[in-house]
Amino acid sequence: MYEECIALLEERGVTVDDIVDCVVFLQKQYVKNIEEINIHEIVESVIRKREVQHALMTGINIDIQVDKGAFGSETIQQIIGTDEGLYGIDEVLAYGICNLYGSIALTNYGYIDKVKPGIIGTLNDHDAGQCNTFIDDIVGAIAAAAASKLAHSQAVK
Amino acid sequence: MYEECIALLEERGVTVDDIVDCVVFLQKQYVKNIEEINIHEIVESVIRKREVQHALMTGINIDIQVDKGAFGSETIQQIIGTDEGLYGIDEVLAYGICNLYGSIALTNYGYIDKVKPGIIGTLNDHDAGQCNTFIDDIVGAIAAAAASKLAHSQAVK
Amino acid sequence: MYEECIALLEERGVTVDDIVDCVVFLQKQYVKNIEEINIHEIVESVIRKREVQHALMTGINIDIQVDKGAFGSETIQQIIGTDEGLYGIDEVLAYGICNLYGSIALTNYGYIDKVKPGIIGTLNDHDAGQCNTFIDDIVGAIAAAAASKLAHSQAVK
Amino acid sequence: MYEECIALLEERGVTVDDIVDCVVFLQKQYVKNIEEINIHEIVESVIRKREVQHALMTGINIDIQVDKGAFGSETIQQIIGTDEGLYGIDEVLAYGICNLYGSIALTNYGYIDKVKPGIIGTLNDHDAGQCNTFIDDIVGAIAAAAASKLAHSQAVK
Repeated sequence: MYEECIALLEERGVTVDDIVDCVVFLQKQYVKNIEEINIHEIVESVIRKREVQHALMTGINIDIQVDKGAFGSETIQQIIGTDEGLYGIDEVLAYGICNLYGSIALTNYGYIDKVKPGIIGTLNDHDAGQCNTFIDDIVGAIAAAAASKLAHSQAVK
Repeated sequence: MYEECIALLEERGVTVDDIVDCVVFLQKQYVKNIEEINIHEIVESVIRKREVQHALMTGINIDIQVDKGAFGSETIQQIIGTDEGLYGIDEVLAYGICNLYGSIALTNYGYIDKVKPGIIGTLNDHDAGQCNTFIDDIVGAIAAAAASKLAHSQAVK
Repeated sequence: MYEECIALLEERGVTVDDIVDCVVFLQKQYVKNIEEINIHEIVESVIRKREVQHALMTGINIDIQVDKGAFGSETIQQIIGTDEGLYGIDEVLAYGICNLYGSIALTNYGYIDKVKPGIIGTLNDHDAGQCNTFIDDIVGAIAAAAASKLAHSQAVK
Repeated sequence: MYEECIALLEERGVTVDDIVDCVVFLQKQYVKNIEEINIHEIVESVIRKREVQHALMTGINIDIQVDKGAFGSETIQQIIGTDEGLYGIDEVLAYGICNLYGSIALTNYGYIDKVKPGIIGTLNDHDAGQCNTFIDDIVGAIAAAAASKLAHSQAVK
């Protein structure tokens, strides 16, 4: 299922390297010699987790259905399609990912979701005429989870 | 949007009265004269909440897409379609509802999700050949939220 | 810190074996040959997790402070000391543990918190004249987390 | 209990006006004519909520016990007293508040917890030789909850 998740991310314009960049953004001020750490591996380990894969596949497939105009009534299509400010189910899915990595992951996610660095900003701009309501939060949550895992692993030393 | 939510529930086989029965199941041992309380009104007030409506419309539409065989790859179709034991995104959406009503709502939901009284058991049996992976958790969460609201309102007296 | 957590649990009347019994209660209907699985090891691995240790030490020390009559004003002493029905911070700490193990852990916790098997029922009876407001939820959460970890590990096979 | 909460906040150096400033910081870019809105009233309504009061009284009393050197073993005293980076129970309590106000409140909290505007930065500096491990997160959560309530109320118009 890991390969299917990676393929789904890429199909929507996101690579693992994009997520690595978000992790670096979150952790560079806290971790010395961050360039010596294999962050790619940490991001991969997050995406290998079953519950993360379920959230990812569910969320991105909602985006895809909305793009097709096939996800239910006009009301809900409109709400998700325009990423209406008070629609928060994309964040609920993201918390489902972050919660698995502890409270620091949630704080990191809240921050990245506001600041929107790198790929998260790109997804949020909706330039490609593609619905990115769920994918930007899922990418943010994976990056926040990986950043939290990195922080915990550094503390062990 | 409230009417649309009620219609969507009914289309999938759930009435507000079914949810009222679940609330009574949860609270009858704690609340004296429960038959004198307008629980229908409390359930309605939960379904009128914007975030509850968003969760409800998102979750039930996933069920509907899965019924159509239209929700993404065979892998995810299979996982959601069979309500695979370790798929937990339906519960994640349910927590998004319960959290709004405090920690008692979450405990109530965990209990009702195991015991499966009334309509929740019926939905879980999948007899109608219909995917009920999300709707049973959403109904359970609405009942648990209403039960929690009832408990808090009784304590105020 | 692991030894300190075990000592703190024992000081308040809970052994790892008591928690193992709760895990068996939760999982015996789902797992064949459960007696062949080293559940003790799974419970230990949960208690070795840093965030679990932090929750455990924080919660149990609140119980101890309340026993001493030292935890703030009479109002909050009274609320925690009597485990007032609408006080939910003990559950909030428990969710902090369960969340780390995914959505199944949360459902298990909600169920065990209502049914109160074994040691959880004993703690809840408050016979020893000791405040058990936090410890019963922490024990329930550790058992629910271990049960969830067991369920996930079985599925991998 | 509301007055007791306000008194406890003030005793530790926080006024309702300080929290109002944090709400303005969070919402000024989204809400036109924010100076015409009675944010004081919104913050008060958050602090009047029973579960918020329970979290506030529990968290701040932990800070006070730690100041007295009375909260359990040296290990946990040290961890909370220095607000050790990987101690996350203060955030867990904060999520207990934010969850009641929906997913936007959680994102706001994650952001404010990183940026630390106004009183949150002051508390975080620990200048007064006082343990502020819990109070800064509780203040951040109340501000984030009020900001979310403000956002939802604006959308209704």
